[in-house]
Amino acid sequence: MNQQQTWSQRFESALHPAIARFNASINFDIELIEYDITGSIAHAKMLGHTGIVTPEEAVQLATGLEQIRQEYRQGKFTPGIDAEDVHFAVERRLTEIVGDVGKKLHTARSRNDQVGTDIRLYLRDQIYQIRQAIREFQGVLLDLAETNIQTLIPGYTHLQRAQPVSLAHHLMAYFQMAQRDWERLGDVYQRVNISPLGSGALAGTTFPIDRHYTAKILQFEKIYANSMDAVSDRDFAIEFLASASIIMVHLSRLSEEVILWSSQEFSFVKLKDSCATGSSIMPQKKNPDVPELVRGKTGRVCGHLQALLVLMKGLPLAYNKDLQEDKEAIFDSVHTVKACLEAMTILLREGLEFSTPRLSAAVAEDFSNATDVADYLAARGVPFREAYNLVGKVVKTCIAAGKLLKDLSLEEWKALHPAFEQDIYQAIAPQQVVAARNSYGGTGFEQVSQAVTAARQLLIAEHTSPTTATSSN
Amino acid sequence: MNQQQTWSQRFESALHPAIARFNASINFDIELIEYDITGSIAHAKMLGHTGIVTPEEAVQLATGLEQIRQEYRQGKFTPGIDAEDVHFAVERRLTEIVGDVGKKLHTARSRNDQVGTDIRLYLRDQIYQIRQAIREFQGVLLDLAETNIQTLIPGYTHLQRAQPVSLAHHLMAYFQMAQRDWERLGDVYQRVNISPLGSGALAGTTFPIDRHYTAKILQFEKIYANSMDAVSDRDFAIEFLASASIIMVHLSRLSEEVILWSSQEFSFVKLKDSCATGSSIMPQKKNPDVPELVRGKTGRVCGHLQALLVLMKGLPLAYNKDLQEDKEAIFDSVHTVKACLEAMTILLREGLEFSTPRLSAAVAEDFSNATDVADYLAARGVPFREAYNLVGKVVKTCIAAGKLLKDLSLEEWKALHPAFEQDIYQAIAPQQVVAARNSYGGTGFEQVSQAVTAARQLLIAEHTSPTTATSSN
Amino acid sequence: MNQQQTWSQRFESALHPAIARFNASINFDIELIEYDITGSIAHAKMLGHTGIVTPEEAVQLATGLEQIRQEYRQGKFTPGIDAEDVHFAVERRLTEIVGDVGKKLHTARSRNDQVGTDIRLYLRDQIYQIRQAIREFQGVLLDLAETNIQTLIPGYTHLQRAQPVSLAHHLMAYFQMAQRDWERLGDVYQRVNISPLGSGALAGTTFPIDRHYTAKILQFEKIYANSMDAVSDRDFAIEFLASASIIMVHLSRLSEEVILWSSQEFSFVKLKDSCATGSSIMPQKKNPDVPELVRGKTGRVCGHLQALLVLMKGLPLAYNKDLQEDKEAIFDSVHTVKACLEAMTILLREGLEFSTPRLSAAVAEDFSNATDVADYLAARGVPFREAYNLVGKVVKTCIAAGKLLKDLSLEEWKALHPAFEQDIYQAIAPQQVVAARNSYGGTGFEQVSQAVTAARQLLIAEHTSPTTATSSN
Amino acid sequence: MNQQQTWSQRFESALHPAIARFNASINFDIELIEYDITGSIAHAKMLGHTGIVTPEEAVQLATGLEQIRQEYRQGKFTPGIDAEDVHFAVERRLTEIVGDVGKKLHTARSRNDQVGTDIRLYLRDQIYQIRQAIREFQGVLLDLAETNIQTLIPGYTHLQRAQPVSLAHHLMAYFQMAQRDWERLGDVYQRVNISPLGSGALAGTTFPIDRHYTAKILQFEKIYANSMDAVSDRDFAIEFLASASIIMVHLSRLSEEVILWSSQEFSFVKLKDSCATGSSIMPQKKNPDVPELVRGKTGRVCGHLQALLVLMKGLPLAYNKDLQEDKEAIFDSVHTVKACLEAMTILLREGLEFSTPRLSAAVAEDFSNATDVADYLAARGVPFREAYNLVGKVVKTCIAAGKLLKDLSLEEWKALHPAFEQDIYQAIAPQQVVAARNSYGGTGFEQVSQAVTAARQLLIAEHTSPTTATSSN
Repeated sequence: MNQQQTWSQRFESALHPAIARFNASINFDIELIEYDITGSIAHAKMLGHTGIVTPEEAVQLATGLEQIRQEYRQGKFTPGIDAEDVHFAVERRLTEIVGDVGKKLHTARSRNDQVGTDIRLYLRDQIYQIRQAIREFQGVLLDLAETNIQTLIPGYTHLQRAQPVSLAHHLMAYFQMAQRDWERLGDVYQRVNISPLGSGALAGTTFPIDRHYTAKILQFEKIYANSMDAVSDRDFAIEFLASASIIMVHLSRLSEEVILWSSQEFSFVKLKDSCATGSSIMPQKKNPDVPELVRGKTGRVCGHLQALLVLMKGLPLAYNKDLQEDKEAIFDSVHTVKACLEAMTILLREGLEFSTPRLSAAVAEDFSNATDVADYLAARGVPFREAYNLVGKVVKTCIAAGKLLKDLSLEEWKALHPAFEQDIYQAIAPQQVVAARNSYGGTGFEQVSQAVTAARQLLIAEHTSPTTATSSN
Repeated sequence: MNQQQTWSQRFESALHPAIARFNASINFDIELIEYDITGSIAHAKMLGHTGIVTPEEAVQLATGLEQIRQEYRQGKFTPGIDAEDVHFAVERRLTEIVGDVGKKLHTARSRNDQVGTDIRLYLRDQIYQIRQAIREFQGVLLDLAETNIQTLIPGYTHLQRAQPVSLAHHLMAYFQMAQRDWERLGDVYQRVNISPLGSGALAGTTFPIDRHYTAKILQFEKIYANSMDAVSDRDFAIEFLASASIIMVHLSRLSEEVILWSSQEFSFVKLKDSCATGSSIMPQKKNPDVPELVRGKTGRVCGHLQALLVLMKGLPLAYNKDLQEDKEAIFDSVHTVKACLEAMTILLREGLEFSTPRLSAAVAEDFSNATDVADYLAARGVPFREAYNLVGKVVKTCIAAGKLLKDLSLEEWKALHPAFEQDIYQAIAPQQVVAARNSYGGTGFEQVSQAVTAARQLLIAEHTSPTTATSSN
Repeated sequence: MNQQQTWSQRFESALHPAIARFNASINFDIELIEYDITGSIAHAKMLGHTGIVTPEEAVQLATGLEQIRQEYRQGKFTPGIDAEDVHFAVERRLTEIVGDVGKKLHTARSRNDQVGTDIRLYLRDQIYQIRQAIREFQGVLLDLAETNIQTLIPGYTHLQRAQPVSLAHHLMAYFQMAQRDWERLGDVYQRVNISPLGSGALAGTTFPIDRHYTAKILQFEKIYANSMDAVSDRDFAIEFLASASIIMVHLSRLSEEVILWSSQEFSFVKLKDSCATGSSIMPQKKNPDVPELVRGKTGRVCGHLQALLVLMKGLPLAYNKDLQEDKEAIFDSVHTVKACLEAMTILLREGLEFSTPRLSAAVAEDFSNATDVADYLAARGVPFREAYNLVGKVVKTCIAAGKLLKDLSLEEWKALHPAFEQDIYQAIAPQQVVAARNSYGGTGFEQVSQAVTAARQLLIAEHTSPTTATSSN
Repeated sequence: MNQQQTWSQRFESALHPAIARFNASINFDIELIEYDITGSIAHAKMLGHTGIVTPEEAVQLATGLEQIRQEYRQGKFTPGIDAEDVHFAVERRLTEIVGDVGKKLHTARSRNDQVGTDIRLYLRDQIYQIRQAIREFQGVLLDLAETNIQTLIPGYTHLQRAQPVSLAHHLMAYFQMAQRDWERLGDVYQRVNISPLGSGALAGTTFPIDRHYTAKILQFEKIYANSMDAVSDRDFAIEFLASASIIMVHLSRLSEEVILWSSQEFSFVKLKDSCATGSSIMPQKKNPDVPELVRGKTGRVCGHLQALLVLMKGLPLAYNKDLQEDKEAIFDSVHTVKACLEAMTILLREGLEFSTPRLSAAVAEDFSNATDVADYLAARGVPFREAYNLVGKVVKTCIAAGKLLKDLSLEEWKALHPAFEQDIYQAIAPQQVVAARNSYGGTGFEQVSQAVTAARQLLIAEHTSPTTATSSN
């Protein structure tokens, strides 16, 4: 095996087999192979463009590399553990294909800037895909919201019923979170989409390379200004993992709610068979596995974020082998986020059904209209704190008497405070309680309609205009 | 104590004293007091503007609040544990000052949107200050770089000497990291600078408030589009803590290097007395406490980031009391990042001295010019991999013979490969080795000079143009 | 200030004031003062015992140190920032009290082994206190369990009703978790209770000290076998934080359940006024702040655990200043765990009331007895998988018909499978469903009674026998 | 696919294919297959023993399960994604082999207690193996220590030379850390080695099972006392990950030191070719990849620990699907810890060589004997702080004069303090400086010899006596 190791000439004896296995990254960095080929082709073209190799040699290299891509796609090229890493695997195969000129590919390049290029190309592509998945997820949230503007659901703080809200309003909160996720990934994208290629091992190169040329071919927006920074920077990966963690936190919150809603006690939604599973011994069970798994996978991505922070802490410049450990954390986070977005999108689209009668009953049977009584008085000149205190007492009395607010007679109302009139009954009816919260961003139907319309326009505009972040591979 | 609790009217018995202590946040959220006052003044003005209170009442409220600010600054207002939290403390004091009209302040507002406003005002201000501190830190890095363009220092990968670099180039890597930190905080700032005020407890309010009016007074750029999202969103805090963690990772890397450099083995820098400490029993010791502490404090900020992710995981909408736990994590991270940036700035400015003779000697005594021999051959048509392998053998031979590359005779060079000429000696001299890496972003002196100049212009432009993020309080 | 710095003689210029502030730990390590005094007294006695100082000097030192302890307790000794750390503060005050002999206290000792001793004495004491708090918590769980053996509550998997259980059984699950916490802390205690005193700065000392003597005075069970390990080991702190995190995870789970149970939808418990809070604008609200805060504080302790792991990663031997950063993480975790255990103990003891009628109704109204039908058949020779599948179909049919299992007629049962007899009705009654699960550790009343009795005996035995871990300070 | 899903009878429509993929765990939990078979055999035997199935049926089940084990080992049984999880895969294959009796295997069992049994059997086995790997690692540390008792190496605090130490003493610090790791895993083992089997889904079972019988067959030391706790407990996994994180922290510290030692500046060790790698472009490079990777992998395990804490936070009782996410974190941590222990063992055994001449020179060329001068004076009656201050001044003077302490003449010494005599030179010679630290656990040669002997006896005793933790599968 060692005979082939590219760096073996200064070395007299072979690498210990267990150490070779320990060092090897080929079993996971194979995921980068097409990005590696794409990066190498750009490098080869630049070598030709600048005269570092002849134009013919550049064409040979690029053609050979494209052939490897095809071989890989067709399952004909499957490098094993003896390849050490994907970069050597490709370079070695290239030399088999094009002969000695293959050995010129690595001129004016190091594995350090090469792998940095690969991982950025990969992540750029994945961010693009994740943003698409977010748009899908937003789309299904919006579809649900559009048909549920008039559906009421209890609104909670501290998991205690607070004030009834439009179900659309509730769902649109997640739309807004997803929108921030989409925008935040756009910011991360800006810091991923910078080319380190041409930084060499750490110090640049003595060859007359053209970094702008490769960056242009690879559609990088900027190039790193400092070669030592370029090869040792993993900020963009940490940033991505932080953004991925926030996405997972959002999905975990929605998951928690779906789990609550599908419990017998809430019964706000029914899980459909296509998205629920049973128990191995309890025949009646229908389990919300999808949101449970999503909630559980949140830890996984937060863990990867922590892993990378631990990894980077205290590393001196420039490249250190520790950085090889960034990949699995990134790959697994990408897979997890994509899978969870997809699963939640399916769940919302076809996996659950809101029980409208149960929701209607729920909002009518509690004291979540108490604030409206206080507001009613405040709007009639009673200082808010006074009104608030008065209503607190009324609620206490009602609970003791087993009554709701709507059960009080007008006399009882007037006995409490002379400002009450017949219109108090309307003021505390759930539909009116919701409608009345017509402040900007509030749950009032008018506000919610406007929010839904604006969201729809955002998604439509997205589809008809060129996106800022385009897939690259 | 409980007599005063604002929500006590529905409650019959007093809060258990231990529980009151457990719930209270006044001992830490007092840090928000001025932001709370600022937010309340804006709210009061809006109440007047919209006619929810009379203009006179609005003035009374605003004047009373300003008085509390002054009292606080003069140490005359120091709320204790019985105040529960800073918001109640201010509201209660206000009622003492202005009488019953004080009870109107909380009309059309909830603690949920109020605290959300406070923490965003606070963080906006702190981000501004941290960005200023980053600029200071960049300034001192740049000062050092400007005077050390021609100073050489070994460049490392794997902590093995790789290729000599300009000390300025090495320092500018940290300038670039700091630049990304500055820019990243700018992105976070955009998501902090959004007003939740007017979202009420969760659903908006029945009062005819004007959220754009308060946002304008408080210089928020946008307002939250969804009230449930507004009161339960802590994304901006997680994002800030992620950015703060990355800053700390950068500082920990520089710290590690300073610690290495000040070891007897490296001896690249001397610590000055003003920034070093001694040992309680070893009289000869001079310890790099500052970078050690900075490196250690990295864990602290990463820990806070994880704390907030754990906190948010799986929380249903909307506000939950768990969110109260965000504050100490944010406050401590702000203090830590500011203190570490300041300490590292002082350390670089006046706490250490580079040992130029030691650095000059270091770059001349190793094989870090070996790549240049390979490049020399490659530039003369030898395929890179062949050239590389040849040089690997040379190095092995030299080590066995106790020689450096510069010690080989021209005959010996030619015996290795006929392409070697007299100019090989120049090609492997450290100054030339560095100068030759003149690719964009490389360590070549020309490149480094340009990078330093560009950086200086960036900092100057900053000072003469209005910043995008301005302090608010 | 610098004039007084104990290590200043090799130094020519004063420490930069900002750096002095940055380095100082006195504002938090003052928490260690009594442990520092205790440790120093033991050291002084040992110095006398071994003749390193005279017996009279040893007495002077010990007496002076005791005086400082009294001064501190009476608020007469309050060292400021100029003291750098608590160790210097005490040593300096000692010299003021006893004169030059005070300068002999530090003979054969370093701050490195001194602070290591202090933090272990502190943590040993705190673990003792936390274990006591766990016992209190277990006591209140057991009290509740003893009176609720016959109370039924739905048992859940996936938050779907699975099988009814005894409320005592449910509560005893937390008793068992707490028992593991208690035992685990006992294991940690063994690794905390080891003396590093006498390890010097890193290498031991040239003085004829007696480490076993100080260990005996300080009631350490063992002494560190390797001085370099002794001064750089923080395993015990990480272990403690991991155990503290697990405690918090347990409390967060119970908190989640209390929050669910006190929601309107579950209504399994009522929060009492002494442990609940209200809303600033919603007069009807009664919020479960205590469990919410406990749940939120879980992140805090997990964050501290991660902070310490980041801190320790990659630190070379032996002592590094980074280690100073361990203290705040430990202190805050200790405070948090103690406060949360206390708050949850109060909550369970007097803050909530189980709604027995609601619980009885709950277990009668669902399909959580479906497994018992399958078991019924399996016990009569039908292969389990077949029985299970049959019951799955029955449940589906019942749901469609709006029936529960108890609503099926005997004919309907027999039509499903001839093995059904009249006793099926008894087999599926909630009380019998619970009683029948009489396997060891199951929810059968007999099992639960035995478990409760065993637990009570465990707690009683605890009180009447000497504990293994005793408070030390 | 769905036709075969064991829980499908209550369900009308098929699982969405993407959701089926999302839920499936077969691609990773296949790692548990042999543990699952072992657990099922014990369950089958118990079913026969208690008469729940006939003795013949029990034999059939056990024989069929053993056949599946053989098929798996021979690569003939490779369940795919349609198997959902390893438990169903085995049960289904069993029914293919033994016919309908296979459907009886799951009588009186649930996947919840089944998977809990599997993961504990797995982890018990892995802990045994990791403890063996720790013993190997300790063995090689001890081998190195035994031959290097007289070898001196600078001892550091703050990475500044503090006092010279025996290289054996330095290495034995890691031996002691590993010893704690070994002991800590032993404690974890006690909490892993508890049987949940027979807890059913959450509440126990109605069948007359014998949990002690299965526990005995499976060599579990205890059985869970509470069924709800049993199926929802993952404490043991968190504890294991915390212990694994501490192991990694130790290895990261040793790695950091090896990296430092193999740098040109330290040059304390030479890396051998069998454990070092080269650079793709710098022919002279020999990189310490192994310790770098180990250091980097530390983050990975800490990340998994955090993942599990996030996962468990706030989960209500009893089993939730989130728990499925524990496995990959556990598996990867097990693999990582084993691989890192093995790699570091190889590295120490054959991958590096200490440069004794360089070490000898290093300890003679600095001021790390300064403490000994202070100790010299203190032993002659000068108060320690005075002696310390005096030496601080001497060091400063020497540095200014470019001298070491050994270069001072006796007159110069006496001028400093009259207590100095000719024996000062002996007192500050490195060998004597080390020898003099003869306090228990110190670096004095006598102490180190005893420590090495004691360690050797510990390892020998280990091999000749039965271990407490035995492999189970």
